[in-house]
Amino acid sequence: MIPRYTRPEMADIWSPQSKYRIWFEIEAHATDKLAELGVVPADAAQAVWKAKDMSFDVDRIDEIEREVKHDVIAFLTHLAELVGDDARFVHQGLTSSDVLDTCLAVQLKRASDLLLAGMDRVLAALKKRAFEHKMTACIGRSHGIHAEPTTMGLKFARFYAEFDRNRARLVQAREEIATCAISGAIGTYANVNPAVEAHVADAMDLNVEPISTQVIPRDRHAAFFATLGLIASAIENVAVEVRHLQRSEVREAQEFFSKGQKGSSAMPHKRNPILTENLTGLARLVRSAVVPAMENVALWHERDISHSSVERGIGPDATAHLDFALHRTASMIEGLIVHEDRCRENLETYGGIHNSQRVLLALTQAGASREDSYRLVQRNGMKTWDEGGKLVEHLKADEGVTVLLSDDQIEACFDETYHFKHVDTIFDRVFGAS
Amino acid sequence: MIPRYTRPEMADIWSPQSKYRIWFEIEAHATDKLAELGVVPADAAQAVWKAKDMSFDVDRIDEIEREVKHDVIAFLTHLAELVGDDARFVHQGLTSSDVLDTCLAVQLKRASDLLLAGMDRVLAALKKRAFEHKMTACIGRSHGIHAEPTTMGLKFARFYAEFDRNRARLVQAREEIATCAISGAIGTYANVNPAVEAHVADAMDLNVEPISTQVIPRDRHAAFFATLGLIASAIENVAVEVRHLQRSEVREAQEFFSKGQKGSSAMPHKRNPILTENLTGLARLVRSAVVPAMENVALWHERDISHSSVERGIGPDATAHLDFALHRTASMIEGLIVHEDRCRENLETYGGIHNSQRVLLALTQAGASREDSYRLVQRNGMKTWDEGGKLVEHLKADEGVTVLLSDDQIEACFDETYHFKHVDTIFDRVFGAS
Amino acid sequence: MIPRYTRPEMADIWSPQSKYRIWFEIEAHATDKLAELGVVPADAAQAVWKAKDMSFDVDRIDEIEREVKHDVIAFLTHLAELVGDDARFVHQGLTSSDVLDTCLAVQLKRASDLLLAGMDRVLAALKKRAFEHKMTACIGRSHGIHAEPTTMGLKFARFYAEFDRNRARLVQAREEIATCAISGAIGTYANVNPAVEAHVADAMDLNVEPISTQVIPRDRHAAFFATLGLIASAIENVAVEVRHLQRSEVREAQEFFSKGQKGSSAMPHKRNPILTENLTGLARLVRSAVVPAMENVALWHERDISHSSVERGIGPDATAHLDFALHRTASMIEGLIVHEDRCRENLETYGGIHNSQRVLLALTQAGASREDSYRLVQRNGMKTWDEGGKLVEHLKADEGVTVLLSDDQIEACFDETYHFKHVDTIFDRVFGAS
Amino acid sequence: MIPRYTRPEMADIWSPQSKYRIWFEIEAHATDKLAELGVVPADAAQAVWKAKDMSFDVDRIDEIEREVKHDVIAFLTHLAELVGDDARFVHQGLTSSDVLDTCLAVQLKRASDLLLAGMDRVLAALKKRAFEHKMTACIGRSHGIHAEPTTMGLKFARFYAEFDRNRARLVQAREEIATCAISGAIGTYANVNPAVEAHVADAMDLNVEPISTQVIPRDRHAAFFATLGLIASAIENVAVEVRHLQRSEVREAQEFFSKGQKGSSAMPHKRNPILTENLTGLARLVRSAVVPAMENVALWHERDISHSSVERGIGPDATAHLDFALHRTASMIEGLIVHEDRCRENLETYGGIHNSQRVLLALTQAGASREDSYRLVQRNGMKTWDEGGKLVEHLKADEGVTVLLSDDQIEACFDETYHFKHVDTIFDRVFGAS
Repeated sequence: MIPRYTRPEMADIWSPQSKYRIWFEIEAHATDKLAELGVVPADAAQAVWKAKDMSFDVDRIDEIEREVKHDVIAFLTHLAELVGDDARFVHQGLTSSDVLDTCLAVQLKRASDLLLAGMDRVLAALKKRAFEHKMTACIGRSHGIHAEPTTMGLKFARFYAEFDRNRARLVQAREEIATCAISGAIGTYANVNPAVEAHVADAMDLNVEPISTQVIPRDRHAAFFATLGLIASAIENVAVEVRHLQRSEVREAQEFFSKGQKGSSAMPHKRNPILTENLTGLARLVRSAVVPAMENVALWHERDISHSSVERGIGPDATAHLDFALHRTASMIEGLIVHEDRCRENLETYGGIHNSQRVLLALTQAGASREDSYRLVQRNGMKTWDEGGKLVEHLKADEGVTVLLSDDQIEACFDETYHFKHVDTIFDRVFGAS
Repeated sequence: MIPRYTRPEMADIWSPQSKYRIWFEIEAHATDKLAELGVVPADAAQAVWKAKDMSFDVDRIDEIEREVKHDVIAFLTHLAELVGDDARFVHQGLTSSDVLDTCLAVQLKRASDLLLAGMDRVLAALKKRAFEHKMTACIGRSHGIHAEPTTMGLKFARFYAEFDRNRARLVQAREEIATCAISGAIGTYANVNPAVEAHVADAMDLNVEPISTQVIPRDRHAAFFATLGLIASAIENVAVEVRHLQRSEVREAQEFFSKGQKGSSAMPHKRNPILTENLTGLARLVRSAVVPAMENVALWHERDISHSSVERGIGPDATAHLDFALHRTASMIEGLIVHEDRCRENLETYGGIHNSQRVLLALTQAGASREDSYRLVQRNGMKTWDEGGKLVEHLKADEGVTVLLSDDQIEACFDETYHFKHVDTIFDRVFGAS
Repeated sequence: MIPRYTRPEMADIWSPQSKYRIWFEIEAHATDKLAELGVVPADAAQAVWKAKDMSFDVDRIDEIEREVKHDVIAFLTHLAELVGDDARFVHQGLTSSDVLDTCLAVQLKRASDLLLAGMDRVLAALKKRAFEHKMTACIGRSHGIHAEPTTMGLKFARFYAEFDRNRARLVQAREEIATCAISGAIGTYANVNPAVEAHVADAMDLNVEPISTQVIPRDRHAAFFATLGLIASAIENVAVEVRHLQRSEVREAQEFFSKGQKGSSAMPHKRNPILTENLTGLARLVRSAVVPAMENVALWHERDISHSSVERGIGPDATAHLDFALHRTASMIEGLIVHEDRCRENLETYGGIHNSQRVLLALTQAGASREDSYRLVQRNGMKTWDEGGKLVEHLKADEGVTVLLSDDQIEACFDETYHFKHVDTIFDRVFGAS
Repeated sequence: MIPRYTRPEMADIWSPQSKYRIWFEIEAHATDKLAELGVVPADAAQAVWKAKDMSFDVDRIDEIEREVKHDVIAFLTHLAELVGDDARFVHQGLTSSDVLDTCLAVQLKRASDLLLAGMDRVLAALKKRAFEHKMTACIGRSHGIHAEPTTMGLKFARFYAEFDRNRARLVQAREEIATCAISGAIGTYANVNPAVEAHVADAMDLNVEPISTQVIPRDRHAAFFATLGLIASAIENVAVEVRHLQRSEVREAQEFFSKGQKGSSAMPHKRNPILTENLTGLARLVRSAVVPAMENVALWHERDISHSSVERGIGPDATAHLDFALHRTASMIEGLIVHEDRCRENLETYGGIHNSQRVLLALTQAGASREDSYRLVQRNGMKTWDEGGKLVEHLKADEGVTVLLSDDQIEACFDETYHFKHVDTIFDRVFGAS
C-alpha cells in the first residue's frame, strides 16, 4: 500500500491489529461450537472470549513468530498469554489455513464494502453531472476526429453505465469471495465437524465453502482481482476522456484547480490534468494484480503456499489503490469544470462538416446513388476542411447538389436539435424512466 | 487460431463466410425495419433478402477492400453486385461499427455456446469420475508433502466445483457480451431510429445496448476475456494435478495411452503426461488475452479503432484455444487411468505419520498441554520419517505417550474410515443431495 | 498469425515447409558428423543429402503424425520414404528436442533479421524526417498542456533514439536466442558426442548452448519476447504521438491519405489516423507474449512440454505482427504529412505564455524573490489564459513587472530562437556529429 | 514494499530521507555549474552546500506539500528554511522532472547494485553446490517421468548458467537506466545549459541522457523491469525444482529446517518447502511489474505523469521483493540438504529402463531397423515398467534381442559412467576451464 494512495479506512482493514482481531473471532466462534459439540470444555470456550476487549500485542506476536517461524502458532501462543491455559482448547482440529483463508475472506469482503461505497460515490457524481449537462452540445469524435454532435451529458451517462455494470460485477465478486472454510488439514473435516464451519460462517456472515482443500479455492480470488482490474479500466476510461478534454487545444473541461495549488514549478500558467493522469497510472497498477491472481489458481495437490506472498502484496495494494482511485475519480468528477463555451466553439470549428452524414442521406433519398452522393458530399466536405467556410454554403454553391436538393432542404440538414432527439431515450435506459 | 488447437466448429464461427453471413443478416433486418418506418422502400428491403441463400465471394470482397480500404464498404459493394441497385438502401443511417460490433457480439455469443458445451462435457466427466472414485483412498498433500488421507473422488469433486463456478461466470459473461448496437456514427441515433436497433436485437436474439458510442463499450469484452482467463486457469489447475499424479515417483494416475502412440523417439518406455502439459501451456496462451482486453477499454472519446487489431487476434484465438483445451481436458479426464494400488501404496509409505494430527488431538484430550502433545508426536513422527517403521508402533513404545494413551486408544487414531466420514456431506454440497 | 497483419517473408519462416527444411538440415549435418566420428556409415550420411533438393510432403507427414502422435518420428518416417533405408542412421543419439529447439533458434534468428530490417527502415524514416523538420517550430506539451516550444525534428529524433536503443536490445536478444543444443535426452550427451553439436552449430551459424537439459533454457526465449514487447511499446509511443497530432483540434500532422481510400462509410470528410490506431492495438497484441514467455521459464526438472503450445502461438504471432507493425510504422512515418502552418498556429494560440519560464528567470535575476517572481508571472499568465491577448503586452502593462524589467528586457524573453539554440547539440548526440 | 519481504538496505534506498538527499545533491551540483557559468552567484552556490550535513525534515516537507500540492516546490521551500535566502538560486532553469527522474535513475542504479550483490551470492552458492555434487548421480526427468541419469551438480550448474545470463542482462539494464537529464521543461535546454547536465551526470556517476523530453524516456525503465521479471522467473525455476525434489515421494533434497521451526500447526512431522513456495509467489509478484512498466512507455507528447504512480509502486516493490528473494534463494541453496541415498534409490526404481535409449542404439548398430529396435526395446521396457524386475535381465531373456546382442553387449548398455563422461566438458563451459 503506497501511503499517498491509501485511505485510512482501507489501511485499517489490512492492519495487523485487524487481522488478529478477525483471527480471534474465528477461533473463538469455532471454540464455542466445539464446546457445544462436547469436544472442548464449555468453560474453556467461554474463557477465550476474555480476549474480546483486550488488545493484541503485534510486536510480541512478531517476536514469537521469529522464533517458531509460524504465524498462527505465534498468535495462539500470545492468546494463551492473554487468556491463560484455556487457550489450549482453541484451534482444536483446525489447520492454520482455516483461519488465514477465512480471515482473508472477511478482509476482502470488507474491502468490497468500501469499494462499493466508492463506486456509489462515483455513480452519484456521474449521474448528477450527466443530468446537469444532458443537453450541453459538443462535438463527438471518433479516431480523435470530429464526427457528429453529442452532449457532455451522454459522456457522463456512458461512464455511469460502465460503472454500474462494474458495480454489479463487484457485488457478484464480493458474494463469491465471502466464504468460510474450516475443513482441517486437507479439507476432509477429519478432525473437525462441518458444524463448526457452519457456525463460524454464520457468525462471521460468510457462506460455507462447499469443498475446500487445505485452502479456499483460488479461482474465487482470481475472479475478485479480475473484477478490480475491470473497475480500474473503467477509471482509466473516464480519466483518458478528461485528459483529452482538458488538453490546451480542446479545453472543454478542466479538473478543479484550488487556489493554493501550483501547477508547475516552471510554468505558472499551466493547469495540468494531474488527477486523471495519476488515475491512469493507478489503473495500470491495480490491473497488474490480475495475472498473478490467475497464476495462483493452480496450486499443487491440496495446496502449496505460493499464493500467500502474492496475496500479501496484491490483497492490500489492489484494494487500497483502487479505493483511493475511486474517491479521487469521484471528487474529480464532482469538481470538474465544463467549459460550455469551448464545447460550442469546437463544435463549430469545421464549418458544420459533422453534418455530412445527413447530407449524404438526403442526397440518397433524393435519388442519387450511394457512390454519387458520397462523391458530392466528399468534395464539399474536403473544400470546407481545406479552405474553411461553412459546408452549408459550399453545398448551396455546388450545382451537382442543387439539382437534387433545394436550399431549404440543404439547410434542414444543419439543424442541431436533430442530433439530440433521442437523448431522453438513452437517459431513460441508463438511469431508468423518470 | 493455431490449427492443431482449433476445432472446426469454432473455426467456422470466425470464418469470413460466417462473418459476412452475420453482417448480411444485421443489414437485412435493419433494412426491414427502415422500410417499416418508411425510411427506405419496402420493395428494396425485400429485394435484399435475395442474398439470403447466396454465397458471398470472400475473394471478391477482399479485392474490393484492397481498393477502398474499408471492409464494410467492400461488403456493401459486393452485396450490390449480388442483389442489384436496391442495395443502396442498405446501411442507411448506420455506421460500420454498428455492423461490426453487433457481429462480434453474435460471434462471441456463439463461441460461448460452444464453450459452455465444452464445459458441460468437462463437468460430466469430472462428476462421473468423482463418483467412481468417491472412496478411493489416497494421500492428501500440502506443500507436496504427505498430510492426511483424502480420496481421488474429492479431487475430481473440487475441480467439478471450480468448473461449475466458472460455468456460471461464463453464462453471465455470455449474457453481458450479447448486445446489439445500431446507434449511428456517434451513438446518438441521429440518423437511425432506435427502433431499428430494437428490431435487429430481437431478430438476432441479442439485448439492446443501453448506451453506446460509435462502439459497444469494451468493458463487456474485457469481462468476457477475463472469464476465459479464469476458465483457462481452472484447466491449468486440473492439468497440474494430473501431471503430479503421473510423475514416475507418484504414478497414481496416468493419461490414457493409445496403442499406436509413441511416447518418445528415444525412450520407448515413457508414458508422458503430454496432454496435461499441453493444457498447461494452452492456459497461459488463453490467459494472455486478459490484459490486452482490459487495455482496450479506454478508447479515445467516442471511439478509436485500436481495439480492433487486438480483437482480430484474441477473439478467435482465445475462444478457439480454450474450446480445444476444454475438449482435451474432458477426454483426458474421461480416459484417465487411476492406479488404485499405487494410491494405497503411497498412502502407506510413511508408516502412518499422516495420522499425527489425530494423535495430537488424542493426547491433548487426554490432558497433555498443546506443547507437550506436539513434542510427543513430533519425536515419534520424526523417528518414523527418519528410521521407517510404523508410527503406531513407535508411539506404543514411547512411555511419554503410553502414560496418557492406551494401546487401543493409540490404534484408534489409525482407523482410516475416520477420515472419510464426511465425504458424503461434501459430495452432497457439490453435486446436490442424492 | 493474423493474415492481414503478416508479411509473406515472415509467414515463410514459420511455414511447415520451412520448418521441415530446417529439421532436415539439422539432421543431415548431425549425421555428417556422426559419420565422421564413425558412429554411422559414411555412405548413409551422404545418402541423406539426397533429400536436399526434394520437397517434403507436409500432408503426408501430418498423416503419419496422426498415427504415431509424434512429430519428429513422423518426419523421420517420411524422410525414409524419400531417401530410403539409410535414413535409419539419422537422428542417432539425438532427442526430438535437439531438433525442435535448434530449429526454433534458427527461426527466431531469421525472424530477428527481418525485424532488424524493419527497424532499420523505421530508423531511416525517422532520421530523414527529423532532419527535414529539425527546425520546424511547434509547441511542446506536458500533460497535454502547452509548455515551451520545441521542434517537430526533436520529436522524430527522440523516437529515433528509442528505436535505436531497441535495435541494440534486439541485436543482443538475437545473439542470445541463436543457440544450438544437440545434447540428447537429458542434456548429458550420453548418446551423442558434443562434437556433433559443435558441427551443427557451426553449419547452421549458431552458438553452442553451454548447458541444456532436454531443451534449450527458456530464459533465452523470455528475454527475446520481452524485447519484442519493448519494441512494440516504442511503436505505441510513436503511434500515440501521431494520433494526438492528427486530432481535429491539433492537426499538426496527418497520416498519408491515398486517393482511393474512404475514411468512413458515413462521414466522407474524415481523415482518421487509422494506421496509428491499428499500431496501438498491435502493440498490445505483441506485448501479450511477454508474460506467457516468462511463465515458460520454470519447466519441471529436465523439461516439460508446456512451453510448446505457448510458443506455437507466440512464436509466429509476436514476430509476424511486430514485423508487420514495423513496416506499417515505417511507411506511416515516411508518408506523414506535417502541417507546418498548423504547428505555427498552435504555437501562438495562447499569447506566448509558453515563455513564462523565461520571464520568471528574468525577474529572479532582476532581484525578485522566487515567490514574488512566480506571483507576477502567474497573474499575467492567467490573464492571458483567461482573457486572451499577448503575455508580452500584459507584462509591459504590469507595474509590478516594469519596476524590475524594461520593455526590451521583457521582449527579449519572447525571442523564439532562444529555445532552439541547443537543437544541434541534441542532434549530434542522437545521430552523431556531422 | 511488503515489510517481511524487504531488507533494510533496499528499504533505505527508497526512504524519503534518501530521496531528499539525492534531490539535494542534484540541485547543489547543478547550482555549482550554474555559478561557474555565471548564471547564479558563486557565493549562493557555495551556501547551498551548508545543507550537506543537515537532516531534511520529512514531516515538514509533507506539510508544505499538502499546501502547495507539488513535491519539488515543497522540498525547495524547506531547503530555503535550512540554508536561507540563497536557496532562491537553486533549481534555476530546471524543471521538477529533471530532479525526479535523475533521482530515480540514482535509486534504480543503487538498487541494481544490491541486486547484483544478491545475484553474486546466488551464483556463488550455486557454483559451490554444483562442484560439491558434480558427480552425485540422480535420475533425469522429462515430463516428470524418469528418463536418463544426470547429476545433481548439473542441475545446480544449469541454474548457475541462467543466473549468469541474467546477471549480464542486469548489468546492461543498470547501465541503461543510469542516465541524467537536466534539460528543462520540454527537453530543449532552453533555460539551462547542457553543461549543467554534464556536470551533474559526472558528479552523480551517471551517463548523460542524449535526448529527453520533460522526462527520461520510459523504455529504459521498461527494459529494467523486464529484466527483473527475467530474474524472478529464474528464481521460480530453481524454486520449482527444489519443491519437486522435496516432495514426499522424491525426497532428493530438502530445505534446511532449523531446530525451533514448526512445519505445521497440525502435522508436526512435516518439513515443507515453504521457502521455495514463497519464492514462487514472489516471482509472480515481481513479474507483475513488467506489463505496467511497458504501458508507461507511450506518454503523451513531451510527457504526462501517468507513469509516476505506477513507479511509486513498482519501483520500490519490484526491487525490494526481488532483492529479498535473491537472498532467500541464496540461503536456501547454501543450506539445501541433498539426500544422495534417495537420489540413488530413485535412480534404480524402474529396473534400469532409463538405459533404453542405449539399448535402442546398440540394436540399431547391430543391424536392426529403427522400427524393429524400437519394438524390441519397447516390449522389454513395458515389461519392466509393468512387472518390475531389471530391464537388463528381461533383455537377456528376449530372443529377439539376443540374436542381435550378446549378454556382454547388453550389460555394457547399463554402465552408469557412460552417462557422465561429458560432465567435465559441461562444467568447463559453464564455469570456465579449470
